[in-house]
Amino acid sequence: MHIQRAVSILVIGTVALDSVETPFGAAHRLLGGSATYLALAARYFWPEVRLVAVVGRDFPAAYRAVLERAGIDLEGLMVNEQEDTFAWGGRYHYDLNERDTLYTHLNALASFDPVLPQTYRDSQIVCLGNLDPRLQQRVLDQVENPAFVICDTMNYWIEQTPEALRAVLRRVDCLVVNDAEARQLATEPNLIRAARKIQAMGPRIVIIKKGEHGALLFYEEEIFSAPAYPLEDVFDPTGAGDTFAGALAGFLATQRGFDETALRQAVIYGCALASFVVERFGPERLLGLTPEEIARRVAAFRRLTFFPNGDIQTLLALSGSDHAS
Amino acid sequence: MHIQRAVSILVIGTVALDSVETPFGAAHRLLGGSATYLALAARYFWPEVRLVAVVGRDFPAAYRAVLERAGIDLEGLMVNEQEDTFAWGGRYHYDLNERDTLYTHLNALASFDPVLPQTYRDSQIVCLGNLDPRLQQRVLDQVENPAFVICDTMNYWIEQTPEALRAVLRRVDCLVVNDAEARQLATEPNLIRAARKIQAMGPRIVIIKKGEHGALLFYEEEIFSAPAYPLEDVFDPTGAGDTFAGALAGFLATQRGFDETALRQAVIYGCALASFVVERFGPERLLGLTPEEIARRVAAFRRLTFFPNGDIQTLLALSGSDHAS
Repeated sequence: MHIQRAVSILVIGTVALDSVETPFGAAHRLLGGSATYLALAARYFWPEVRLVAVVGRDFPAAYRAVLERAGIDLEGLMVNEQEDTFAWGGRYHYDLNERDTLYTHLNALASFDPVLPQTYRDSQIVCLGNLDPRLQQRVLDQVENPAFVICDTMNYWIEQTPEALRAVLRRVDCLVVNDAEARQLATEPNLIRAARKIQAMGPRIVIIKKGEHGALLFYEEEIFSAPAYPLEDVFDPTGAGDTFAGALAGFLATQRGFDETALRQAVIYGCALASFVVERFGPERLLGLTPEEIARRVAAFRRLTFFPNGDIQTLLALSGSDHAS
Repeated sequence: MHIQRAVSILVIGTVALDSVETPFGAAHRLLGGSATYLALAARYFWPEVRLVAVVGRDFPAAYRAVLERAGIDLEGLMVNEQEDTFAWGGRYHYDLNERDTLYTHLNALASFDPVLPQTYRDSQIVCLGNLDPRLQQRVLDQVENPAFVICDTMNYWIEQTPEALRAVLRRVDCLVVNDAEARQLATEPNLIRAARKIQAMGPRIVIIKKGEHGALLFYEEEIFSAPAYPLEDVFDPTGAGDTFAGALAGFLATQRGFDETALRQAVIYGCALASFVVERFGPERLLGLTPEEIARRVAAFRRLTFFPNGDIQTLLALSGSDHAS
């Protein structure tokens, strides 16, 4: 296989059947899971995306075909014929910022022991979707020489497996969490201090996702604040965080390095793709996006944050001088 | 009196004695109130700031001197010798995003009937601080030809005097509210839709303050998203919103018009001054700021939101082409 640069992206996480209720409707047994969103988003920027996950005997052939048609390498998608596919049900509140988990049927996920196909072991960019940190560790152990490791986690692992999570964090370049998780992981209410404390745990890059308020990137000493795209119609926030991380990974694959400049842009592409995915139930919006739509949305992010240079010295001199005479 | 341009700013609101408890300490009988913060912030940008408010017999001469030394016109500061000064006590929670009001002693505010001095009636920029909308109306009635009206309000007036509030809004150019108030006023959980509904009530400009998440400016059809300055130490959020609105008014006074370009910049100056005021209890930080400090902070806002232009077409073409051969 000859690709332009020897970069490939490995995503590990869940492939799930999601049932979602929102104030706008409900949808059942949608294609979902962190690995699904990670891979479908990354694929918009980079062709070489390898997936590691497990599904069960009930996983629809049509969903497998969706991932195949998107060009995702499914050699690492295991099928457990003794179990059903991991299934998650959730209900979103009135303002879509909070959700209740209605059920979590681990099914095939309960005995998931990720073994990387030989062809995956040279992956450069590794996206560790939200999973038991011991599984995230096991995946990292099988990658020969990862150049950039992105990691997600959640409150459950912060509470239940803090030691294993700390061990993973020491091997992570970029942790992507939401604001509540950052506060919990750092036991610190101030988000800026929380990010600094997490950086001291290992990841030199911390990205805090804030839903409708955008995202904060902490790159060593620097901070970048990305807005959320102002959406009047959010249908289903499921998968927005994984879409963000997948687009981030995909964009970074196109760059020469993982420096601050690349990361700032990557965060904007992450926000852009996340803003699309919430417009429909499930990953539907990630299947038919055009480059022009993405380009237009990124341009909208630029307009959204633009402010002109003022002549601050003149301005402040004015207020300091004596105008009464 | 000869000023460079015939612009003056009128602020109306409360001058109060605030007692504040935060996780970091407590302070009692601080100089506070919406008119205080509005005027002290506006004064950084524009020399002609006129204040209308009432205080009581217990208002310290030292606090009056603070306002005088800042160059604020106090001809409209009434003193009610029968009553004490409006006093407010509040306690902030652990993460400083929520607060409980411990007491509100209206005192002199209960019988406040704002009468504008003759010299105030030609004011161009009018800042209506959070007050009974019937009083806000009465002030507007006394201004001959206001060029730009900025208005604040709160949940109490949204619930208790909805009709009076609607009547004020029809005469307002720019409403400045926080996110919860915007949702409540518009009875709409989505902030973008809420802003659109509020614009339909009168104000062509709506600014939604989101505390640690920054602010959103809705200028006719356009949206501008301003970040919050990433502060590791927030001591006392009291007055941040009024400081924001005061700086906005002060900056606008220096501009040729109230167009979108001016408003985008004004919002950044508002966020910048608000980011200073929360660093200390009360308005202390607004008394000794230098132009250089403000300029540095505005420059920091620019770094905070900067992202480079990517070559999106090349990038997306890349992912669309066939790299395997």
